[in-house]
Amino acid sequence: MKARILVSFKDSVLDPQGQTVRNALHTLGYDAVQDVRQGKVFELDLSGISKAEAERLIPEIAGKVLANMVIEKYTWQILED
Amino acid sequence: MKARILVSFKDSVLDPQGQTVRNALHTLGYDAVQDVRQGKVFELDLSGISKAEAERLIPEIAGKVLANMVIEKYTWQILED
Repeated sequence: MKARILVSFKDSVLDPQGQTVRNALHTLGYDAVQDVRQGKVFELDLSGISKAEAERLIPEIAGKVLANMVIEKYTWQILED
Repeated sequence: MKARILVSFKDSVLDPQGQTVRNALHTLGYDAVQDVRQGKVFELDLSGISKAEAERLIPEIAGKVLANMVIEKYTWQILED
């Protein structure tokens, strides 16, 4: 079973990496890009557990290990069984 | 219009960050996690262009600027109009 977890800064937190990318895109002429937010993606390969266990485990791993919940938020989805 | 671009190492490229995360998860007892691949996510806020233009622009930006196509691959999707 594969799961994808997206971790990004909360909207209220400044994202200097994203701003740098946006500025670089403007320099290259991509003026349609108003804003860029950069984050991390984790793709987990899980085995030996049921989908129900995975649905309990993934947010636990995301909230405790992968994201710093003080400044970051996460979303997750199961990609395949 | 918002677009999401996921950039990760090609499957043939070693991912030491992902391996470190996997080892950390094993240390914490999350043995169901067989493998972890880590990548980057970019959320772009686009304006003043049509959806068709966005569908042309996003892979161009991803392939030329956001991903290093020698060792990385990307996927993208438009999140909302």
